[in-house]
Amino acid sequence: MKNKTISLKERPSGKPTLNNFEISEEEVPKPKDGELLLQAKYVSVDPYLRGRMRDQKSYIPPFELGKPLESGIIAEVLESNNKNFTKGEFVNGMLQWKKFQTSNGNGLNKVDRKHAPLKTYLGVLGLTGLTAYLGLEKIGKLQKGETLLVSGAAGAVGSVVGQIGKIKGCRVVGIAGSEEKIDRIQEKFGFDAAINYKTTTNINKAVAAACPNGVDVYFDNVGGEILDAALVNMNRYGRVINCGAISLYNKTETPTGPRVEPLLIKNSILMQGFIVRDFVKDFGPAQKQLAKWMEEDKLTYLETVVEGFENIPQAFIDLFDGKNKGKMIVVV
Amino acid sequence: MKNKTISLKERPSGKPTLNNFEISEEEVPKPKDGELLLQAKYVSVDPYLRGRMRDQKSYIPPFELGKPLESGIIAEVLESNNKNFTKGEFVNGMLQWKKFQTSNGNGLNKVDRKHAPLKTYLGVLGLTGLTAYLGLEKIGKLQKGETLLVSGAAGAVGSVVGQIGKIKGCRVVGIAGSEEKIDRIQEKFGFDAAINYKTTTNINKAVAAACPNGVDVYFDNVGGEILDAALVNMNRYGRVINCGAISLYNKTETPTGPRVEPLLIKNSILMQGFIVRDFVKDFGPAQKQLAKWMEEDKLTYLETVVEGFENIPQAFIDLFDGKNKGKMIVVV
Repeated sequence: MKNKTISLKERPSGKPTLNNFEISEEEVPKPKDGELLLQAKYVSVDPYLRGRMRDQKSYIPPFELGKPLESGIIAEVLESNNKNFTKGEFVNGMLQWKKFQTSNGNGLNKVDRKHAPLKTYLGVLGLTGLTAYLGLEKIGKLQKGETLLVSGAAGAVGSVVGQIGKIKGCRVVGIAGSEEKIDRIQEKFGFDAAINYKTTTNINKAVAAACPNGVDVYFDNVGGEILDAALVNMNRYGRVINCGAISLYNKTETPTGPRVEPLLIKNSILMQGFIVRDFVKDFGPAQKQLAKWMEEDKLTYLETVVEGFENIPQAFIDLFDGKNKGKMIVVV
Repeated sequence: MKNKTISLKERPSGKPTLNNFEISEEEVPKPKDGELLLQAKYVSVDPYLRGRMRDQKSYIPPFELGKPLESGIIAEVLESNNKNFTKGEFVNGMLQWKKFQTSNGNGLNKVDRKHAPLKTYLGVLGLTGLTAYLGLEKIGKLQKGETLLVSGAAGAVGSVVGQIGKIKGCRVVGIAGSEEKIDRIQEKFGFDAAINYKTTTNINKAVAAACPNGVDVYFDNVGGEILDAALVNMNRYGRVINCGAISLYNKTETPTGPRVEPLLIKNSILMQGFIVRDFVKDFGPAQKQLAKWMEEDKLTYLETVVEGFENIPQAFIDLFDGKNKGKMIVVV
């Protein structure tokens, strides 16, 4: 039995390519005292990983060249020399892109497939769902009757954001990049209206038309011109949750746009960068609420599941072409 | 005795000029039942009035063409047909640019010259001081030991912001546009360091050098490139109080600049538009605190006093050339 590792070979310039990654083979490690041997089962690939591929200080240190990449992974405990874990259990945590790896157990949470399919702990019950829920709760402070605008609306986070908006009694408008996505968010996820930004000639006017009472909360997964359109349509005391900026991640030069400060001042608007890890202490109750909504059939989700450890880099690259329907997961 | 009124003749395009204003003469009005006759004593001119000269929706309606302008004014009660006011009292409120005017008393606050010079109710004890205090309190949430950066630092609001920062035990760095202002904010107002943005070749590096521990709170009175420099130097969980954008007010085209959303996400930064009128219910305690600091000689201020009702427009225009030292006031 051989182990495999995916490392960062070179930092992407612009859109990532397969050449940026390297797959190597090695021996399966042996767990020491207090350690576990883990086998990766499901690997989450997410747009934010692009940021860690840049050589710059951020909320997590950048990936190092020649070192394994990492992301949210569900793994099975194959051997345990740690009294807190038992062989056959499943755990969730930030783990390396390796088929097999050892861990001292720090930062790992047990997950139970009796309650929900294991994969959902990377999606709607994992950081994806928590990002949607806590972003709306902590920064958006969304109130019944308000208008919620969401970009990347057909994506893993966006689709949960919109559904929570509907549960809370809001008008929910989504922005996405294909007719198929536009249909999906209205039919499957219950959004009130949707805008295809790729075929809309004037995004400002499209947002205005879809949000006749203005925008109260904008959950931004994309940044750029769609953020500009949201800002000019915001009501007084509007809130922008800056969760992602996928439209900018692959830019090689500093992106520019209209200045936001006159708009913020004019309408007392708040914009705030949101990182779900800042709210770890709120994960427990948030997860319970999400699970409850799932049981009540108020919250649904889609996944795009790619097979094969070797396909992790391609699955990651496909995120930037919007090829995923909902959460992108690689099954090892 | 003739009355005089200053009206908006035409909306400024770019920097305001005297031609945008018109002075007319009329009879002194007679107060009806329940009304007062007021004589303007001190008139506040402020950069934010430029925004109201534009024909666009904002937090206050725009000025109308051919109608009198208005701003914060201290006036004397010359006659009173209103039981709540007595002849000889002084009041503070949003009043028209008229030598004499009637009022039903709504929105007027009495001011007492025994406690402080009347003019200070337009400055450090008025909206100016309240803007500094409440902006730091409500959005900045400034903590002891943090680094506070202030632009427009030698101005009416900025100089109070910096002094409050020192009272709270912070490192305070100011940005202003002349050597004389740079000296003044350090020597008179006790700032720890100061940057002359007009002679600095690289404002990003200058901010980095003056803020070796990064910027925790940035109180922005100017917007534009100085805001950009603050953002790239901000620490995690940094807060930006978007109070003014004087560098952009006279632009005729939509100003552009580097996009902020990647920086907000990277460091969980908050930016929020601040309008002091959103916090009217906090004015009382805030004013008490400011008055106490003045009595204790912890808070000082400068004024530029211009004489003559007819000179209100010129005093307003001079704000955009930075000709004022501290609060600009016209004594009628």
